[in-house]
Amino acid sequence: MELLRLGPIGHEIPVVRDKDVHYDLRPLTTDIDSEFFADDGIGEVRAALDQGALKPLEGAEDRRIGAPISRPSAVVCVGMNYAAHAREAGAEPPEAPVVFFKMPSTIAGPYDELELPPYATKADWEVELGLVIGTRAFRVASAEDAYSHVAGYVLGNDLSERRFQIDESGGQWSKGKNLPGFTPLGPWIRPAAEVEPESLRLRSWVNGEVRQDSSTSDLIFDVGQIIHQLSQTMPFEPGDVILTGTPQGVAMSGKFPYLTDGDVVEMDIDGLGQHRQVVSVTQ
Amino acid sequence: MELLRLGPIGHEIPVVRDKDVHYDLRPLTTDIDSEFFADDGIGEVRAALDQGALKPLEGAEDRRIGAPISRPSAVVCVGMNYAAHAREAGAEPPEAPVVFFKMPSTIAGPYDELELPPYATKADWEVELGLVIGTRAFRVASAEDAYSHVAGYVLGNDLSERRFQIDESGGQWSKGKNLPGFTPLGPWIRPAAEVEPESLRLRSWVNGEVRQDSSTSDLIFDVGQIIHQLSQTMPFEPGDVILTGTPQGVAMSGKFPYLTDGDVVEMDIDGLGQHRQVVSVTQ
Repeated sequence: MELLRLGPIGHEIPVVRDKDVHYDLRPLTTDIDSEFFADDGIGEVRAALDQGALKPLEGAEDRRIGAPISRPSAVVCVGMNYAAHAREAGAEPPEAPVVFFKMPSTIAGPYDELELPPYATKADWEVELGLVIGTRAFRVASAEDAYSHVAGYVLGNDLSERRFQIDESGGQWSKGKNLPGFTPLGPWIRPAAEVEPESLRLRSWVNGEVRQDSSTSDLIFDVGQIIHQLSQTMPFEPGDVILTGTPQGVAMSGKFPYLTDGDVVEMDIDGLGQHRQVVSVTQ
Repeated sequence: MELLRLGPIGHEIPVVRDKDVHYDLRPLTTDIDSEFFADDGIGEVRAALDQGALKPLEGAEDRRIGAPISRPSAVVCVGMNYAAHAREAGAEPPEAPVVFFKMPSTIAGPYDELELPPYATKADWEVELGLVIGTRAFRVASAEDAYSHVAGYVLGNDLSERRFQIDESGGQWSKGKNLPGFTPLGPWIRPAAEVEPESLRLRSWVNGEVRQDSSTSDLIFDVGQIIHQLSQTMPFEPGDVILTGTPQGVAMSGKFPYLTDGDVVEMDIDGLGQHRQVVSVTQ
């Protein structure tokens, strides 16, 4: 099954898609958010589907697809987690997960227009495997145990403005990661039980030309290691989102131009759907 | 007036103190949170006080003092914002504000016990002037205009574990900033109209010995400059908290030992009250 939020920005309704039919989740939950995951929302949706207790949603295909989670309490990102991307950024592969944060308010839908202010001249794409935490994770004993804390997986774009991230940041990356709309997620969250995160192909394109084409099998720290190691230093809560890092093929490498007005950014991950966003430079 | 949240962890009630009398704010708001500030909660509280519409709260002095804001959507921190602290950390004063994030879940009360896991052997204090955003701030035109976006000020401790922040971070500081309870705030938020943030004395002590003793007049980037400059790169929302940086006198300087079991950490800022926390190393 796939969990989605459909409707205008700020007015999305919770939906589950199962065997290509969309069902309205409003009888079960007001939203797909931290509370939903804390209360085993996925288990409740599964039970309701099995009992035939949900009603199909009319006109689902005509609605805007929003981000499939509303305002987590944290969006934690792992940097330099693919060896070839670390090299293209001029860095050595790290010995422990490298972490920065994005504001939850930067979350956007996977087909929303990507608005850039005119001074954001080094905007760059990063296709990433994302995960949503299902149960509180602090001081998790092992990488194996860590998987039990994952509710589901999601396709994310960790958009970055490299001037603010690198040139004028004093070395702290978060500054270039938080323009409005800089964390498109979706189109859906797929429950962890239906995903094998070890070898998912992840790709991105700009104007139809491939930019990134890699596999999560190339992750330096895999999902279990990320949660295990980071949970020693920070408590994850239900609904928190972790983006696991991006592979080589970004503009920062010097091989491709940064994003500009009218560019079309597309990405996908096996089983987690696609993004397609048009860049619009505003005044 | 001072805005407080009093009661057990997770069950704090909103309170205003005015001329030393505590008033129950529950008839006005369920909590002091992002919505409260978005809806001009401070203006409503002022009007209710002027009309004599609030009832005194019995036994206010006997209740635990919680953090004076519940779960902002972001806690944004400015680093190396006092020249002498930059030097003690071995860095040059920055040319633009340096930013990292803390998880909103790390917020704690100003008298709560500070629990450290046994491996947190480089835990360090940082007294800071904090501010709470009142109205959305994105691409604010000038440092002067920025002050109109501040709802109030608060005393904060940006606790840090230097091994995770520096030694094992790959250079990204957030990793060492997010152990549970690592962002004590309070005891109160004082409305911006009642605070002159330009020259507040801020101090910290460990076991009664002074550690930090400085003034916000030594800030490299003042409150207006921080909001103006950062709002070009990230949208601040009502209830977001910004911690403006710490002055010299932390353990990382090598002059003082890191925190250990039984240590008493105290801090204060003119007009913004005190913290007093006892360190407890857990297993």
